[in-house]
Amino acid sequence: MINKLADKIKKTNAPIVVGLDPMMKFVPEYIKEKAFSEYGETLKGASEAIFEYNKGIIDAIYDLVPAVKPQIAMYEQFGIEGLIAFKKTVDYAKEKDLVVIGDIKRGDIGSTSEAYAVGHLGKVSVGSNEYYGFDEDFVTVNPYLGSDGVKPFIDICKKEKKGIFVLVKTSNPSSGEFQDRLIDGKPLYEIVGEMVDKWGSDCMGDSYSYVGAVVGATYPEMGKVLREIMPKAYILVPGYGAQGGKGADLVNFFNKDGLGAIVNSSRGIIAAYQQEKYKSFGEKCYADASRQAVIDMAEDISGALASVK
Amino acid sequence: MINKLADKIKKTNAPIVVGLDPMMKFVPEYIKEKAFSEYGETLKGASEAIFEYNKGIIDAIYDLVPAVKPQIAMYEQFGIEGLIAFKKTVDYAKEKDLVVIGDIKRGDIGSTSEAYAVGHLGKVSVGSNEYYGFDEDFVTVNPYLGSDGVKPFIDICKKEKKGIFVLVKTSNPSSGEFQDRLIDGKPLYEIVGEMVDKWGSDCMGDSYSYVGAVVGATYPEMGKVLREIMPKAYILVPGYGAQGGKGADLVNFFNKDGLGAIVNSSRGIIAAYQQEKYKSFGEKCYADASRQAVIDMAEDISGALASVK
Repeated sequence: MINKLADKIKKTNAPIVVGLDPMMKFVPEYIKEKAFSEYGETLKGASEAIFEYNKGIIDAIYDLVPAVKPQIAMYEQFGIEGLIAFKKTVDYAKEKDLVVIGDIKRGDIGSTSEAYAVGHLGKVSVGSNEYYGFDEDFVTVNPYLGSDGVKPFIDICKKEKKGIFVLVKTSNPSSGEFQDRLIDGKPLYEIVGEMVDKWGSDCMGDSYSYVGAVVGATYPEMGKVLREIMPKAYILVPGYGAQGGKGADLVNFFNKDGLGAIVNSSRGIIAAYQQEKYKSFGEKCYADASRQAVIDMAEDISGALASVK
Repeated sequence: MINKLADKIKKTNAPIVVGLDPMMKFVPEYIKEKAFSEYGETLKGASEAIFEYNKGIIDAIYDLVPAVKPQIAMYEQFGIEGLIAFKKTVDYAKEKDLVVIGDIKRGDIGSTSEAYAVGHLGKVSVGSNEYYGFDEDFVTVNPYLGSDGVKPFIDICKKEKKGIFVLVKTSNPSSGEFQDRLIDGKPLYEIVGEMVDKWGSDCMGDSYSYVGAVVGATYPEMGKVLREIMPKAYILVPGYGAQGGKGADLVNFFNKDGLGAIVNSSRGIIAAYQQEKYKSFGEKCYADASRQAVIDMAEDISGALASVK
């Protein structure tokens, strides 16, 4: 799957993942009205509205980008019905041949991490049958519990040819509280980065490992250091756009081959129609606004990458 | 809710939480057969079997213990159907007036943590209505992203009078890989413990804070230090039983008032009938075996606490 991701990035020339992190305030009124008229202002109504909204965006962008990244929290907040919308979104994106990165940030002790890995990447046994649970292609993993919380994910990745992105340096303002603290003169995120490199070394695709890393666009200098520490890891870069990261900040996350990083944008793309810049599209054409935002983002990134060549 | 938890611990004289972490291999054959005959060897069949199994255990132990802790991963591995069993388990335990600790170990950037907090502890808005998603009383939270990943949980706790347990020192063998690393001469887990104390200081119940901590029974010496660093935090102590923690190891986690800690046991209780010691109960009486295991655990703990008085 890491090979598929790298191939699709080369083909689309867009190292971009669209974050499908729907909030009700992003969903156009006409979609909400339709769903609510059918199911009422209920969790099921919300779930339907969210899936329809996602579907419109996927239809508008699937030929431009390699991947989407649904953030499961945004669905989980609507309980079971929300998770049904998550699963439908995963399935629909895969139908459109998009690589799906489940942003789940799970991580626990060994036997529990194994259950998460099974549920999101692998197959669970029921009697003599086996079933996929959520069946994403990649998931994000929290490393705080150490190797035995991460290894079960890696084991399933090897079996299923899927991958993970381990949180190394997150994009949020307070990420430094623990992640930047110095240990033997090195920040914790570098130590986690070294582990990512180690974990990934025995599960390589053609050029990159199944084990990638999350490093926020908001910390480009740290990205530069981490790029060197983890040469074989694909870096998933959140924080572009709404959180403040810019195209020029991104060059540090890429390798000399122009690969090795995939940049996420969520509301900057999915709620583009609500921005001044794309307002002329109007609510009805929200998905076209998203398409244009992807095109602009791809230009921003390739411009930045070209300027350093 | 922290007051309710402390009160119930005093009343039951059992600082015990039963970990409802069902694996299919724990579920008695007769329960599986019944569920599979109705729904086939499907995810729905597994979900039904798991809920029936949990229900039997809850019925057998609800008068002896203050709380249960379903581990969501064990349900999530069965996809949507598994999460339906999780939700039914949460609801049924609450019907029996048990405090429910959702072991979800979530944690993300601010806006995303807010969605998790809403989904598990709070209410989500749909149009002019509000709905609870999973509606646990407490959840576990991963601190790797720092304050802005934890605060949204605390905000919802204040509103809903609920609580969280922040991962400080986990029970697993490799927890030390990052958590024990020294920062300015102090291990990371102590620094996280200091933050737990700080986060908890402005959301106090009668004697304890809404913000508790997870510290593994497998590390009693660290428990002693953390008990002092976080005097107002309830400590959720996993790792007793199957993971190797013993009654005598637990005294360090309690305050002088005999409160301040609640000890989890999962398979030691829910799969008691599979142990040599409780084998005579037989599979049909699995729940009675669980009840006896709770009684024995309560004695083990009160014996250990009495011996240091």
